[in-house]
Amino acid sequence: MHALKEYPLAQLSPDTLRVWGRTNGSLSPLTLFWTGSALELNVKGSELWLEVESDFSTFEQWAAVVVNGDVIARMPLPVGRHWLCIFRGMAPDKVKNIRFVKEIQPMGGDGKSLFQLHGLRTDGELLPVPALPRKIEFVGDSITSGEGLVGAKAEQDWRPMFFSAVCGYPCLTAALCNAEYRQVSQCGWGVLSGWDNTPDCTIPRIYGQICGPLEGPGQRELGAQEAYGFAAWQPDAVVINLGTNDAGARRQPPWQDAAGQSFQQTGDMAGQALFRGAVVEFLKDVRQKNPGAWLVWAYGMLGREMVRELREAIHEYKKETGDRNVEFLLLPATTDETMGSRGHSGKKAHAQAAEVLADFLKTMWGE
Amino acid sequence: MHALKEYPLAQLSPDTLRVWGRTNGSLSPLTLFWTGSALELNVKGSELWLEVESDFSTFEQWAAVVVNGDVIARMPLPVGRHWLCIFRGMAPDKVKNIRFVKEIQPMGGDGKSLFQLHGLRTDGELLPVPALPRKIEFVGDSITSGEGLVGAKAEQDWRPMFFSAVCGYPCLTAALCNAEYRQVSQCGWGVLSGWDNTPDCTIPRIYGQICGPLEGPGQRELGAQEAYGFAAWQPDAVVINLGTNDAGARRQPPWQDAAGQSFQQTGDMAGQALFRGAVVEFLKDVRQKNPGAWLVWAYGMLGREMVRELREAIHEYKKETGDRNVEFLLLPATTDETMGSRGHSGKKAHAQAAEVLADFLKTMWGE
Amino acid sequence: MHALKEYPLAQLSPDTLRVWGRTNGSLSPLTLFWTGSALELNVKGSELWLEVESDFSTFEQWAAVVVNGDVIARMPLPVGRHWLCIFRGMAPDKVKNIRFVKEIQPMGGDGKSLFQLHGLRTDGELLPVPALPRKIEFVGDSITSGEGLVGAKAEQDWRPMFFSAVCGYPCLTAALCNAEYRQVSQCGWGVLSGWDNTPDCTIPRIYGQICGPLEGPGQRELGAQEAYGFAAWQPDAVVINLGTNDAGARRQPPWQDAAGQSFQQTGDMAGQALFRGAVVEFLKDVRQKNPGAWLVWAYGMLGREMVRELREAIHEYKKETGDRNVEFLLLPATTDETMGSRGHSGKKAHAQAAEVLADFLKTMWGE
Amino acid sequence: MHALKEYPLAQLSPDTLRVWGRTNGSLSPLTLFWTGSALELNVKGSELWLEVESDFSTFEQWAAVVVNGDVIARMPLPVGRHWLCIFRGMAPDKVKNIRFVKEIQPMGGDGKSLFQLHGLRTDGELLPVPALPRKIEFVGDSITSGEGLVGAKAEQDWRPMFFSAVCGYPCLTAALCNAEYRQVSQCGWGVLSGWDNTPDCTIPRIYGQICGPLEGPGQRELGAQEAYGFAAWQPDAVVINLGTNDAGARRQPPWQDAAGQSFQQTGDMAGQALFRGAVVEFLKDVRQKNPGAWLVWAYGMLGREMVRELREAIHEYKKETGDRNVEFLLLPATTDETMGSRGHSGKKAHAQAAEVLADFLKTMWGE
Repeated sequence: MHALKEYPLAQLSPDTLRVWGRTNGSLSPLTLFWTGSALELNVKGSELWLEVESDFSTFEQWAAVVVNGDVIARMPLPVGRHWLCIFRGMAPDKVKNIRFVKEIQPMGGDGKSLFQLHGLRTDGELLPVPALPRKIEFVGDSITSGEGLVGAKAEQDWRPMFFSAVCGYPCLTAALCNAEYRQVSQCGWGVLSGWDNTPDCTIPRIYGQICGPLEGPGQRELGAQEAYGFAAWQPDAVVINLGTNDAGARRQPPWQDAAGQSFQQTGDMAGQALFRGAVVEFLKDVRQKNPGAWLVWAYGMLGREMVRELREAIHEYKKETGDRNVEFLLLPATTDETMGSRGHSGKKAHAQAAEVLADFLKTMWGE
Repeated sequence: MHALKEYPLAQLSPDTLRVWGRTNGSLSPLTLFWTGSALELNVKGSELWLEVESDFSTFEQWAAVVVNGDVIARMPLPVGRHWLCIFRGMAPDKVKNIRFVKEIQPMGGDGKSLFQLHGLRTDGELLPVPALPRKIEFVGDSITSGEGLVGAKAEQDWRPMFFSAVCGYPCLTAALCNAEYRQVSQCGWGVLSGWDNTPDCTIPRIYGQICGPLEGPGQRELGAQEAYGFAAWQPDAVVINLGTNDAGARRQPPWQDAAGQSFQQTGDMAGQALFRGAVVEFLKDVRQKNPGAWLVWAYGMLGREMVRELREAIHEYKKETGDRNVEFLLLPATTDETMGSRGHSGKKAHAQAAEVLADFLKTMWGE
Repeated sequence: MHALKEYPLAQLSPDTLRVWGRTNGSLSPLTLFWTGSALELNVKGSELWLEVESDFSTFEQWAAVVVNGDVIARMPLPVGRHWLCIFRGMAPDKVKNIRFVKEIQPMGGDGKSLFQLHGLRTDGELLPVPALPRKIEFVGDSITSGEGLVGAKAEQDWRPMFFSAVCGYPCLTAALCNAEYRQVSQCGWGVLSGWDNTPDCTIPRIYGQICGPLEGPGQRELGAQEAYGFAAWQPDAVVINLGTNDAGARRQPPWQDAAGQSFQQTGDMAGQALFRGAVVEFLKDVRQKNPGAWLVWAYGMLGREMVRELREAIHEYKKETGDRNVEFLLLPATTDETMGSRGHSGKKAHAQAAEVLADFLKTMWGE
Repeated sequence: MHALKEYPLAQLSPDTLRVWGRTNGSLSPLTLFWTGSALELNVKGSELWLEVESDFSTFEQWAAVVVNGDVIARMPLPVGRHWLCIFRGMAPDKVKNIRFVKEIQPMGGDGKSLFQLHGLRTDGELLPVPALPRKIEFVGDSITSGEGLVGAKAEQDWRPMFFSAVCGYPCLTAALCNAEYRQVSQCGWGVLSGWDNTPDCTIPRIYGQICGPLEGPGQRELGAQEAYGFAAWQPDAVVINLGTNDAGARRQPPWQDAAGQSFQQTGDMAGQALFRGAVVEFLKDVRQKNPGAWLVWAYGMLGREMVRELREAIHEYKKETGDRNVEFLLLPATTDETMGSRGHSGKKAHAQAAEVLADFLKTMWGE
């Protein structure tokens, strides 16, 4: 058995690691911003450690360890910089495919939120991680962030431990499509406003940034607010699962700021027009940034109020732009039986959505 | 116990029977033309007989008996005019909901094909059959005709006994939607040609007739070739499941008639344009005849080759007409596990399609 | 195509037909007494007709047609002697395996009850029906008779149309075990008394007869009351599913006859001892008649009250006789989701029971 | 919010904690020996930490965190004594039910193997943990130890990360029965010998000890080799799932020790008699230690070779002792679809076994 050797990530051959999720480009260290962001390795050796750094003020970080495609561990990370053993005592000559995954979304309100990887130790060698044939970007809200995928049905606390990436429909869809994926999602956010009518809480506002919801000083320094480089990673499909919070906002009181400004989404003609306009503008922006992708607005796991308006908006967008590669897709509704915790879609609901979505995407791609 | 009394159908109060499927309007006798066509009754009595008449030269008639929503019997009909006992010895004071269903499609090549109901006998009384809240029309090919829903996987003979209406996705979808349905479907037929490139074997050619595929002299006398009265039964949705045979035709040799004329569908630009054109023209015709319906082109149970072209054609149609109430819907692909006999979708595949379709329709209707 | 030729069953080569179920040995005609009794053929030809005779006073006869293992038709039989077409127009060179199955139990109260087969017509030839590697006998009550396997949950009428053999656990278990089966079952009957404490309504009383419940003069003439020849068909297992009605009888008022005699099953020590004694005696009788079979008392689909007493009785029997090849097997309980009509186990419940039972039998046989 | 207060386990009111699994009786600290051993608490507070100590030489410790019945985390433990945060930031007034579970079996070959709990910190209070109505003890081999419940099918390394207690049939059965459970299980061990014929590797040898497989000096000091106090925790059922390795041993070469002694299980008459004798002796021992329990030999998830011999042995035991509360139960065989990693039963197989076993136990108990 060889001794463990330590490798800073930045010194590894670039083809021996795959970074999942939007990043700032740095490997010293590698910052994982989004749910499902991950480091993937192919390790031929008996032992592997990762040096992980984590911080938070309110919401602790959670990670999952995937070995050869199966989830082996899921745990909160200790604060600070630590070496975590990923595996040990394994047959040294076999290659293990490893994914170390961020299980929670960027926590917008937590300015200290941090999840980084510095280096690794192994007694073996790293083999190349070959590119996957497809790329998908997922854009969404709490459903896409995997809220409620873990925990008893009756749970009501909004805590990191009830979130998961590895059980979520984005991760499952990507696996079914043999695709790499990235995602941009925030609980409670919408197209035109957040669930409580806050006008800032919209995914379109931050879609162009590396990780817009993170606004703490350290997070800014890491580039969270910088423009994301779309060109370097062009997806074959962008799946947008938004509208659920816009529907909810119509049942909430208006948002008001200190200066007396207020906003409220409504279901009347004017409110519908505003919503449709926001959808059309967002589609234009997404198309401009992803010229070769199928755009799929996939909606319906938790509520169906916006189906007609989303279809109308897509129709308007297509008519106006001539873009034909945009589709609306109805996802299976979450039922009592498929419900997770906190009134959100559970594991079965995500698995069903992934089936429908993967079938649809593969068909769109002519596979 | 009262004695049995005989009632010709034409003498019954019209609100005490529901005729499912396109008919010629006559009740003396009632002719059932299509798969899934049926007579429905609510009988308060202990016994019920139906006087059924059937004929054929090649393909015998099959019927199913549905009692209170469950299929009780499925059988071939004897040739000639016979009284069939539907139930006997039941509690006289309970109301039984009865549907007597034609299990097979109109057999185009069989000029003697005939399925009629003359009258009934009961010791009880008929109660009203209240209208259902929704109406759906299904338009399709062998999948919609329920080919392969019955029989061992290895069956290869094209026989009536391997067809079913009551297990088919149209019947199941309608039940999930609380809807009455009618259907127009022929095995091997397409939008632009039949599976073997025969230009006549297209559903658009006969969509306007009561039952176009039936061309025998007796069938003509019964009105099969007459114009169907769309106005009297306006559906909330028309579901079109066509394209599978058009895709197949591209892999077949050209059709040729005695006069030397030939035709072949092709996958090149010209062939695609022809197919799209046929789809657009058919959508215009369906829309003209069903002004208030959602039009849903539901495709993909057996092959996906036409998805892009169907979507393109729908796009062209919408652009040209401004019609917004048209949708493409991808149905779940039939797998080894859900396959029926004769290489066609089996019971599970139809049940899956019905789930997806009913969910979609109810959402379109805002339910 | 050859012309149809007519063959009386008695003139066929014995290896070209298999009779399922206890019979009187005659083929001119063949009388089918029990649920699941059937005639099986391998026909190489394009067309097959069967000459069927049926009669009844109260409960009409029902039959199912199984083609190559799949149920094609299920229907009531017309009274009298008729030729029924089983298939036509099939590829003449392929062999079709056909089973024509009696779908209902012998109706004890109906002295005219009759189900017979006289002959067949075909344009082809009959091939041998090879023996199956296993034989099973099922002994039971309404569950084994398939009551409630068909029909809406709310049905309450006790009618033949709500019974089925081909969906029942005996038929399914036999298929999973690659076994031929016979069965003896009567609704409402028990080990010690019927559901209403009638002392005559016990399976042990009639187990030794060809078809004891049929007592009409014509039925007697056909041998229903005669001793059944066990030696000629020795099963590898006898599955006894009894006890449900004995449990029910304890909640019913006593039975009383005109002479003032009465009987009631009870749950007290004396009642339990009586029940156990009846079980032990029945096991002895079954063993004596089936020396090489595994005896499996399979119970629990509808109620579990008798589990302890059955186990105790089996223990007593084993201790007393030294017989080791007797087992108690708990079958899966019927749930709301697996319930059929009339408060009886439905299709899913029977399928579950068959899975458990077949697994158990194959394990007992060392397969 | 209150400040965190620290409580050594030994200072807590005994009714506010439940220790799952055999222990040495000490709470300062609490040593968890077996798979599924756990500490359970009801915490009314916003935050909870546990002080955990862990050690190993070869096989790291793994733990699962169960919150309100759902598995939230699963992770390896760091070596040494550490405070682990179980939850934080929760609604302070709600009671959380917490189980901190040992996920792996005692690793016999690892003399340093250690899993302990010292104390807890919370800002809230501990509420009583009421007794559960039933108690079950499980006795088994690798299946019962949950080997292969986690990991890709192709995994071959024998490592702790591929084991799980919380997905295993003992944990699931107990939950379905509303029971507390304890278990004694070692991979590769049997009734008469281990999988490789080692005569020492038998569960009967160590059944009477607290945790016999642990033989390191520190482990001895903790009482692993001491007699377990059966009287204090009398189960309602003992489920024995053994025999799989005895069957395997017959296909292995003989065991030989340095002194030239050898042993091999065989399938001949003598070998069968030896095996049966070991089963009978073990049953006597289990009965003597658990006078009021149902004894259920539940077997068949991975192989069926021993079914007849186990049944015979149980028969012999019953005959010899007059004990009637012993049963053999066939568990569903693991199939390709339900297989886990390392050729062992996977999650679905364990869930199926739990269903059958719970149904059986509840029936035996008359529930």
